[in-house]
Amino acid sequence: MSERPNLLVTSSFVKERLEALLPYAKVYNIEKLDSKALEDLLPLIDCMLVQTWWPESLTPERISRMSRLRFIQSGMAGVNHIPFKHLGKRVMVSSNAGGFSVGVEEFALALVLTAAKRVAKLDYGMRTGGFDPEDWAHLSREVVLLRGRTLGVLGYGGIGRAVGSMVRALGMNVVAFSRHASPESAVQVFQGDEGLLSVLRKSDAVVIALPLSKLTVGLIGSAELSAMKDDAILVNVARAEIVDEEGLYRHLVRHDRFVYATDVWKIKRGKETYSSRFPLLKLSNFIGTPHVAGGSAALTGDPGKLAVENLLRYLRGEAPHNVVDPSEYV
Amino acid sequence: MSERPNLLVTSSFVKERLEALLPYAKVYNIEKLDSKALEDLLPLIDCMLVQTWWPESLTPERISRMSRLRFIQSGMAGVNHIPFKHLGKRVMVSSNAGGFSVGVEEFALALVLTAAKRVAKLDYGMRTGGFDPEDWAHLSREVVLLRGRTLGVLGYGGIGRAVGSMVRALGMNVVAFSRHASPESAVQVFQGDEGLLSVLRKSDAVVIALPLSKLTVGLIGSAELSAMKDDAILVNVARAEIVDEEGLYRHLVRHDRFVYATDVWKIKRGKETYSSRFPLLKLSNFIGTPHVAGGSAALTGDPGKLAVENLLRYLRGEAPHNVVDPSEYV
Repeated sequence: MSERPNLLVTSSFVKERLEALLPYAKVYNIEKLDSKALEDLLPLIDCMLVQTWWPESLTPERISRMSRLRFIQSGMAGVNHIPFKHLGKRVMVSSNAGGFSVGVEEFALALVLTAAKRVAKLDYGMRTGGFDPEDWAHLSREVVLLRGRTLGVLGYGGIGRAVGSMVRALGMNVVAFSRHASPESAVQVFQGDEGLLSVLRKSDAVVIALPLSKLTVGLIGSAELSAMKDDAILVNVARAEIVDEEGLYRHLVRHDRFVYATDVWKIKRGKETYSSRFPLLKLSNFIGTPHVAGGSAALTGDPGKLAVENLLRYLRGEAPHNVVDPSEYV
Repeated sequence: MSERPNLLVTSSFVKERLEALLPYAKVYNIEKLDSKALEDLLPLIDCMLVQTWWPESLTPERISRMSRLRFIQSGMAGVNHIPFKHLGKRVMVSSNAGGFSVGVEEFALALVLTAAKRVAKLDYGMRTGGFDPEDWAHLSREVVLLRGRTLGVLGYGGIGRAVGSMVRALGMNVVAFSRHASPESAVQVFQGDEGLLSVLRKSDAVVIALPLSKLTVGLIGSAELSAMKDDAILVNVARAEIVDEEGLYRHLVRHDRFVYATDVWKIKRGKETYSSRFPLLKLSNFIGTPHVAGGSAALTGDPGKLAVENLLRYLRGEAPHNVVDPSEYV
């Protein structure tokens, strides 16, 4: 590249990090461009840094005019919000896998423990006066002892491995479901549809740590839920769309000892809904938090730093990390 | 002992375990004795197995007539419910320390994580519709990242050590407050009043795992709470009376980022109250559960087994474990 490429960023969030990019790119912040300026710039943009969700102003029609676009760096760990089907084949997309892992892995463990020990349910009961103190023995019996039990991890990447390592310190056994075979002495890794069912059958608690893609959307439906133990715990810190919501709701209603705990919610028109069309939040065997797991990691600055470093690799002509396969997303 | 000693048990809970005692003792269940039979038996009782709380029917006046009583085995880990001041000096009391440790240590970790990640608060907020989804960034900032932070353990016995070992797997540092110096490479152990304040000052989260005794009642008052960080987490899985409730309530009202999470409640007339004279349950920085931590351990049968095994040691003329110092309780 004889002159600095044009970089479009979708947020001023990483302002302090952008300075590192200036020697390698001309940086334009989409939030500071009016419609006319954006229109003029579209055919000139070489690469993008998409901090959070895809900006609404970049409609499919406008994307079609970004003929020079070659690289998109996602600020989020997932890339399911990137409009692959409107991007030319020459556009390479990198995820920010690993950027949020510390926050997300700790949050996954928190949801496993909150669910196993019924902490949110018991605190809610005490707060709203909705349970009888004489019911002590009954409540006690609901509390699950984790030592010696089995945790299944769906998706054995950075977050899945970290969660596995943490729960082994609690005396739990770990099994994993992963596309990539990676034999390990401490963890049995299963693959394929039968492998998924094996992990679900064996596990007392399951953590979903998969990317959302064509391969994983709706992966956990009624059949998979039915394969799980009646009093199992299912934790989702990945993407809501991996679980079939209707199947989940019906399963929770029918199995009152089964607990689903989620930090993630369905995305509609590019925005997370923090709600469901099913009355999940009326159920005492459901735990919901508003996608805060990665937030504490974002405060450390690490995710922004990692995203900018990877973008720098691209700008310097090095191979960027975490390039995704578009065929899994279109 | 030429003939089998008379053993009074306060519950039929360990029925299946009692058979192991029959070759060594004549076993009487207080629940199956009418008032007259109990009165007749009092002067003949040699030892007791007190499964949970002290039975109301054993009044101080009746205790004074138990002239042959020499040993009491507590089924609970704590012995603060044993009426030491009415017992003769020749009565030896053993706690059931360690009996519930797996359940309690897991529960302590669950409370640390639920508090750090604000899970109960966020779930309650979503359930009651009391927060604005636009507040996402604010909620995210409240979520505490634990890796690299410091956990303080007050009382470095079985439960304290286990909690320390589990949180080290999360990348936390551990400091401890303990009467007994026990140098360890991974954990700095502090002693005395100044040592307690040091642990409280250094820690981002503190777990109370001390027995309730003369030495620990009211140990954590306003001065100790003020020594802690404004956004620290304090977890109590020991006994409510170790924390001064009025000082705690005032501290929570004044420090909305400070979180207190407890499984234990004040005991009145031999019964746990599961409530407070302060409106703690109205505060969003308070988490309360109804003393369920040990329940899941009790279901394993381990605590009953340990208590009976220790009682057998006494009956066989061996030295029982976990004999407590009455001067710490009178």
